[in-house]
Amino acid sequence: MKVMRSKEIEQEVKPVFLLLVALFFGIINLYALPQDTTRRAPARASWFRNTVISPEVHANNSVTFRLYAPEASKVEVTGEWMAGFGTKEALTRNDTGLWAITVGPLPPEYYGYSFFVDGVKVLDPSNPLIKRDGTRNDNVLFVHGEGSELYAVKDVPHGILSTVWYPSPVIGFNRRMSIYTPPGYEDSKQKYPVLYLLHGAGGDEEAWAELGRACQILDNLIAQNKAKPMIVVMTNGNPTEAAAPGAAPERKSQNVQSFGPGNMISGKFEESLVKDVIPYIEKHYRVVSDRNARAVAGLSMGGFHTLNIINSNPEKFGYAGVMSMGFFNMKQFGGKDNTEEFEQQIEKLKRSNMKLLWIGCGKDDFLYQSVVELRRILDKHQVKYQYRESEGGHTWANWRLYLSELAPLLFK
Amino acid sequence: MKVMRSKEIEQEVKPVFLLLVALFFGIINLYALPQDTTRRAPARASWFRNTVISPEVHANNSVTFRLYAPEASKVEVTGEWMAGFGTKEALTRNDTGLWAITVGPLPPEYYGYSFFVDGVKVLDPSNPLIKRDGTRNDNVLFVHGEGSELYAVKDVPHGILSTVWYPSPVIGFNRRMSIYTPPGYEDSKQKYPVLYLLHGAGGDEEAWAELGRACQILDNLIAQNKAKPMIVVMTNGNPTEAAAPGAAPERKSQNVQSFGPGNMISGKFEESLVKDVIPYIEKHYRVVSDRNARAVAGLSMGGFHTLNIINSNPEKFGYAGVMSMGFFNMKQFGGKDNTEEFEQQIEKLKRSNMKLLWIGCGKDDFLYQSVVELRRILDKHQVKYQYRESEGGHTWANWRLYLSELAPLLFK
Repeated sequence: MKVMRSKEIEQEVKPVFLLLVALFFGIINLYALPQDTTRRAPARASWFRNTVISPEVHANNSVTFRLYAPEASKVEVTGEWMAGFGTKEALTRNDTGLWAITVGPLPPEYYGYSFFVDGVKVLDPSNPLIKRDGTRNDNVLFVHGEGSELYAVKDVPHGILSTVWYPSPVIGFNRRMSIYTPPGYEDSKQKYPVLYLLHGAGGDEEAWAELGRACQILDNLIAQNKAKPMIVVMTNGNPTEAAAPGAAPERKSQNVQSFGPGNMISGKFEESLVKDVIPYIEKHYRVVSDRNARAVAGLSMGGFHTLNIINSNPEKFGYAGVMSMGFFNMKQFGGKDNTEEFEQQIEKLKRSNMKLLWIGCGKDDFLYQSVVELRRILDKHQVKYQYRESEGGHTWANWRLYLSELAPLLFK
Repeated sequence: MKVMRSKEIEQEVKPVFLLLVALFFGIINLYALPQDTTRRAPARASWFRNTVISPEVHANNSVTFRLYAPEASKVEVTGEWMAGFGTKEALTRNDTGLWAITVGPLPPEYYGYSFFVDGVKVLDPSNPLIKRDGTRNDNVLFVHGEGSELYAVKDVPHGILSTVWYPSPVIGFNRRMSIYTPPGYEDSKQKYPVLYLLHGAGGDEEAWAELGRACQILDNLIAQNKAKPMIVVMTNGNPTEAAAPGAAPERKSQNVQSFGPGNMISGKFEESLVKDVIPYIEKHYRVVSDRNARAVAGLSMGGFHTLNIINSNPEKFGYAGVMSMGFFNMKQFGGKDNTEEFEQQIEKLKRSNMKLLWIGCGKDDFLYQSVVELRRILDKHQVKYQYRESEGGHTWANWRLYLSELAPLLFK
């Protein structure tokens, strides 16, 4: 961003230069200037904050969204508090071109939202906070209060989140994962239990930390003495991918078909978790290498992976969590009937005496019936499990809730 | 995102349900469907990729940007390859409402860009990659080739990037930093040298990794044997802030005045780096605790911090890099004349026999004259330094370049 040429500075634009330098050194305090949020256009320089305030959460948890768009003919907002997929509400324009709407009061939650300007999705330029879900970005709206406080960054000891590359002989290339070590890990010689936490279709190794608030949930539960300090390993469950978008070497991310057959349901990821990931973790971290200090949990596709992993390795895990996923007979999709095989695995799982099998699903989840079917089979074989049915559907709001409720049950 | 109620599934919407499940399990391959990038509207579900391709980098490094906006009356693009601040180029609409423009060929670089739709800044919904500069977000356009290959994720061993909280008694609360450990760190017992790498005004502890591509630059230089394996510690240089936006506890991020007096130039950050950060790093990492294995470098405000740190601690650092920053006599801003004090410090620095003082500045940098003044004082006192003058101004393109050139000179 070229501002001016050096030779001009002394001769022609000294006042501008001095202003920039004074701003730079904080001698002029931009924040102390009077801010008229209804009149001023957004500033574009990266150093200067946007003077339009959006979103503004009021004391009663109603929220005002604002966008300065004098040339637009329609501005709408969509957000995760709305019922239904892609519902929008129109903002109202004032005489200066500032559009605004107040919604709510909203229940405390870590919401996503975005604007639409003349039909085009627009991230709020007044809000630097963005969360990515697969290839989609939305702004963050955090409404604090009972129900969302575990997701907030609190003034408590924080764990460390690391981005770690590891070799995966099973899959054939190096892959990336996110690892949370709990507060105190770096100052102790203690060994810790490990939760392997798996994302859903369209997600990647950044999903649980970014959308699932896994670090905040663990930090807060540990600070409240409600969960044991544990390591959380968040892998990438798409076996044709090395890492999240933009984070993989170019040639690895070419020709990737995330939804291709033989990918999510190839079994490769599940095999690599057991043969590649767990040995890496147990070699490089201070870990209790025992099934009762080892948990696996996942949402949606990650729940499918979790079931496969515990069914194929019934002696390896003391705890498992299956979120928003159940059993599917592949026959209905033109595959072979897999009911008998599944029931045999469930029998083995039962004999392995797992400490906890936890199942969570929303009442409106589009995979609800598969969970009914899974529970029917577990009941038939008298396998014990804890079942949590929540409101809502196939959403991160539910998966954050489930992690908040599952983590305290682990490693007790 | 409520899709349908469970009871409806079997009775009414079985075909839709089966389609969703089939997509979910990858039995239908969405990517294999024919894609007509000129005709189709962006899909909005997070699992489905946007079918408009943007940006598309062609073989000759020209780039096509596309946005589907049938209701918009004006669509423009702005990007870091354009000369001047906020320059825009108009896209052209076809009869379906798809807007497009082809620019370049562009020199290889890690660019930021965004659209403007009817005057409102819009992040490209087809591009999941975003980089944040302070409170501003832009999309990423990576043009590969000579000049940007050090910034790319290559198929080489990767270091680990961690987000670490540490106590800062000097500043008075816990603070956050980003730490890069080089490939092999976790498998060795070796001790490593450390580069403390400081950001500019408006930045934070995420800036060097996100905008500066510090991890990629180090990974690639180390793989090419051009830089020694080193730990890189990227702090938050705003002493009133605990962490990047959204990452600090609520009460810590209230009433923060980043540009307030007594903040960036209070000296508190510099003091905390020496008294809080370095001891934390040397306690928790395998570090060579010796000035010749300790470097500090920073850009802009971080260059100012770097000069303060080496001037106040001339025996502590063997290497220093000052990017896009020089000397200012505070008298011109109503402060006291600090020339004499600075020259006395420079004399001490000279006697400390630092191994390398490296200075980089762009010809068009608005702080260029301050670098002329710094060099005049260093020359007057016969202090040796390496000077690198590049094209361009006060930009991340230059700071990435400077890190690429400085890192190979460290710890030799």
